[in-house]
Amino acid sequence: MEEFDRKKRLEQQLQFIVEVDKVKNIFRQTYLADGKRRENDAEHSWHLALMAVLLTEYAPERVDLGRVIPMVLIHDLVEIDAGDTYAYDEAGAVTKWERETRAADRIFGILPEDQGEWLRELWEEFEAYETPDAKYAHMLDNSQPLFLNDASGGKSWAEHQVKKSQIYKRNQKTSEGAPMIWEKMQELVEKHIQEGHVKAE
Amino acid sequence: MEEFDRKKRLEQQLQFIVEVDKVKNIFRQTYLADGKRRENDAEHSWHLALMAVLLTEYAPERVDLGRVIPMVLIHDLVEIDAGDTYAYDEAGAVTKWERETRAADRIFGILPEDQGEWLRELWEEFEAYETPDAKYAHMLDNSQPLFLNDASGGKSWAEHQVKKSQIYKRNQKTSEGAPMIWEKMQELVEKHIQEGHVKAE
Repeated sequence: MEEFDRKKRLEQQLQFIVEVDKVKNIFRQTYLADGKRRENDAEHSWHLALMAVLLTEYAPERVDLGRVIPMVLIHDLVEIDAGDTYAYDEAGAVTKWERETRAADRIFGILPEDQGEWLRELWEEFEAYETPDAKYAHMLDNSQPLFLNDASGGKSWAEHQVKKSQIYKRNQKTSEGAPMIWEKMQELVEKHIQEGHVKAE
Repeated sequence: MEEFDRKKRLEQQLQFIVEVDKVKNIFRQTYLADGKRRENDAEHSWHLALMAVLLTEYAPERVDLGRVIPMVLIHDLVEIDAGDTYAYDEAGAVTKWERETRAADRIFGILPEDQGEWLRELWEEFEAYETPDAKYAHMLDNSQPLFLNDASGGKSWAEHQVKKSQIYKRNQKTSEGAPMIWEKMQELVEKHIQEGHVKAE
């Protein structure tokens, strides 16, 4: 590669690296384990990546961390433009796909073409939720807020008056990502129904 | 593995996953790119992991992302107990090693033994700063705050009256992690000396 092209490539990578810093300002509905404030997308994605490393043994099919980790690191970047759509916001869900696709065009478009296309494809694979890697990534994305909710005494569930049926609907395929972890999640949901943080119906 | 042991193993992993949530409350001296608040260790580590994925082409020797990524994801966990020691705090540096070793014993000790030992070894390898993987990880750890400092107009440097010689001392081996990125970092330091955010001496 020519000197000029090499420098341009690095500039594109650095521009992307600074641009995605904005995801640290996208706050989610989930509270930190201590219940003191909500967590943001960067913190959430860090947590998923670390969980990805630690929990592969629970995936029913072989997962490739070389794909899962970039996938979870970038899965929420579209929210820089599209905002966070709460898991149980049905009105927001209608426009979510269009808003997020436009965001993906812009954000992954900052990178050199090969890297931008690769991350874009991983994001689309995550959204499609079909491959073993995507199912494992979604299991992480769904279980992490549940573990934090449990740690904070069900704070976010209680605030949003979340129903068991909503949690189960969202987690229809979580057992395909890791059956034993979905089992544990169900135990925790039952505990929080008993404690009055999740509505039985 | 027996049912009882499998459950115990998962409980240890989940306990660790919730424990490390505390790193989201360890704030660093570096500001976000928008300069509005300081960033925390979880956000910082997310950023390093994503950079690790994107910048391997600049490492002079082959790096193994299967080791570098866990390394950067966990490199600051000891600060949960030991606190953040600012890069240019010389008094803090004296007691840092002892404080952090004790923290590593406790935090990695929460995990099942195989995983705890593996992460502990990666942390020690990072601290020893000798292998190609550790040099690449340190290059990320040193360049990310510099890129954020640049984006925020040198805010943290100006606040701490940081000198060029301090930055260079900290980055003695950064070029071993990625020569072309160290070149870019030097350009930025010169720019901020011109702008009065970094002291020439």
